[in-house]
Amino acid sequence: MANPVGFGIMGCAEIARKVCRAIGLAPNATVVAVGSRSVDKARRFIANNGLPEGTRAHGSYEDLLDDPKVDAVYVPLPTSLHVRWAVAAAGKGKHVLLEKPTALCVAELDQILEACESNGVQFMDGTMWMHHPRTTKMRELLSDPNRFGKVKLMNSTFSLYADPNFLQNDIRVKPDLDSLGSLGDAGWYCIRATLWANDYELPKTAIAFPHSVKNEAGVVISSGASLHWEDGRIATFHCSFLAHLTMELSVIGSKGALHLSDFIVPFEENAAGFTFASDSWFTDLVTGWQPLPSKHVVSTDLPQEALMVTEFSKLVGAIKDSGSKPERKWPIISRKTQAVLDAVKTSIDNGSQPAEIVLS
Amino acid sequence: MANPVGFGIMGCAEIARKVCRAIGLAPNATVVAVGSRSVDKARRFIANNGLPEGTRAHGSYEDLLDDPKVDAVYVPLPTSLHVRWAVAAAGKGKHVLLEKPTALCVAELDQILEACESNGVQFMDGTMWMHHPRTTKMRELLSDPNRFGKVKLMNSTFSLYADPNFLQNDIRVKPDLDSLGSLGDAGWYCIRATLWANDYELPKTAIAFPHSVKNEAGVVISSGASLHWEDGRIATFHCSFLAHLTMELSVIGSKGALHLSDFIVPFEENAAGFTFASDSWFTDLVTGWQPLPSKHVVSTDLPQEALMVTEFSKLVGAIKDSGSKPERKWPIISRKTQAVLDAVKTSIDNGSQPAEIVLS
Repeated sequence: MANPVGFGIMGCAEIARKVCRAIGLAPNATVVAVGSRSVDKARRFIANNGLPEGTRAHGSYEDLLDDPKVDAVYVPLPTSLHVRWAVAAAGKGKHVLLEKPTALCVAELDQILEACESNGVQFMDGTMWMHHPRTTKMRELLSDPNRFGKVKLMNSTFSLYADPNFLQNDIRVKPDLDSLGSLGDAGWYCIRATLWANDYELPKTAIAFPHSVKNEAGVVISSGASLHWEDGRIATFHCSFLAHLTMELSVIGSKGALHLSDFIVPFEENAAGFTFASDSWFTDLVTGWQPLPSKHVVSTDLPQEALMVTEFSKLVGAIKDSGSKPERKWPIISRKTQAVLDAVKTSIDNGSQPAEIVLS
Repeated sequence: MANPVGFGIMGCAEIARKVCRAIGLAPNATVVAVGSRSVDKARRFIANNGLPEGTRAHGSYEDLLDDPKVDAVYVPLPTSLHVRWAVAAAGKGKHVLLEKPTALCVAELDQILEACESNGVQFMDGTMWMHHPRTTKMRELLSDPNRFGKVKLMNSTFSLYADPNFLQNDIRVKPDLDSLGSLGDAGWYCIRATLWANDYELPKTAIAFPHSVKNEAGVVISSGASLHWEDGRIATFHCSFLAHLTMELSVIGSKGALHLSDFIVPFEENAAGFTFASDSWFTDLVTGWQPLPSKHVVSTDLPQEALMVTEFSKLVGAIKDSGSKPERKWPIISRKTQAVLDAVKTSIDNGSQPAEIVLS
């Protein structure tokens, strides 16, 4: 590509290694700079991740944002820093690829989105699985009124078993850094999957399961909720740092049902599967099913995170090179995800009272 | 086998066809009589299910219970009739294989269990999947402290999409016949699976999801609940007549996770699968999982319902031939299942207030 989008990576978080590789794999993007609070750390990141020698190391986020080679920033900072640095990036005309959870609440996210909109820059959150071709294929099936019908109920789970070091020291359990804990880190994906399966129609209420587990600092490390629409649809989800790595998603409609066990990070990079049942019923005497759910496998040349970077960079390129407007789809679904997350948090904090989901 | 257990089938319900075949397949059981409110109906059932000519047709349940050839009865009657006929059967010294839900509430079930105990007859409920060798294999894995650890959270779903005729006319939506609706019919299995995975340790509270769907007669046709133990464990389940056929079960422990999609009726009769993950984590850069969950397939010569009949008949035979005492395991787990079901029903009826699970 003639003009790949130049990325600046803001902070040397662990996840930045994955996205740095993804930027390298994307045909329309390249890492031009890395910024850290320490220039040495930025240099080490450049060396350790095989970036070319010309990649610039900056010793502050401000310097990264002042770098004219940087078209877009990837921001994997702790959630509490998102509003400050995403707004600053937009103010400098940099497009923003922001890790999830996008902010501590919708009001904060709105500051970011307003900054992006007023500066004409693209916003996208880092929910990688949205960009896997498997997701497109599943969406097609869910949209088929004959094969799937309408969503009736669903469940999703994202859990991981955190070791004592994680539970003591990880950013995601620190009240000043990521106060949303497992809800922000793991629940985000479940909420996004729920909205995705429901064509982004917001549920009306969220009710946290009682007895959420919090750490000593009050950060949620295991919780879940039920989400309710007025037509009786229900979605439940679990998000926990206390149970074995699990990424289940079941979407059950009137005429069909979808299931997969690796919806966030596919088991393997190059091919990802799911099962889909449609119009299954019992055999005579209820001794089996017919038809059996079918297994689907969707291959991809690029991993989902590289497809995310490619999609983001395509939009950035169109703005840079052709004067296009930013694509509004991405900030809209980020905002809806954050709004549901806010309601679940409210319900957790209110002893599992129902919290209404409102979005102006 | 020299002395197969002689079964009387009490009522010609649809499910009786499946269990009639199962009794024929079990090496230690045989159908000797069929009772119905109409002797013609009993005769037709005998003819249509390929039973031998000598099989006796009775025109009343009383006559069936007075038949000296009948050692045990299989009772697939509507739930509201269970207490009357199961107690009567026990009173006549007949062993009782009772369809689920066992009763409308624990107090009713206790009448049945007391009648069985005082008459020295075996009791078992008709939860067939308990008897599949897959269940034994899964239980072994869940009991492994190194591979699975302790249960942390779980979810199960049993849904089926009822057609208008079912929703209008099926026994399972009639307040006078099966007033527990989808909770009794489908939720029973989810509750049993939850207890099974937790070594039958009762949860402390049940909280129905709000907005259970009821039909005009007030029978629940779609609902679910979260179940809570004092140590923070949580199990959720959905049971619905309004969503596509689904039988998902996920049990997630500290060190491992189990998943299957056909826990109640396996997709196929002769082999049934599940996946089990243990100590899985992400590959470097979080681009995949390692190790991948392993797939297990467990074969069986006899279908699970025939294994249920075989197990029940083994216990009955030991009582008949060797003077053994009835096996108490089966009534105990029926009673626990019914107790949790009662609590969920209470919570549904109380606007999703938590209901304590108590069992004297």
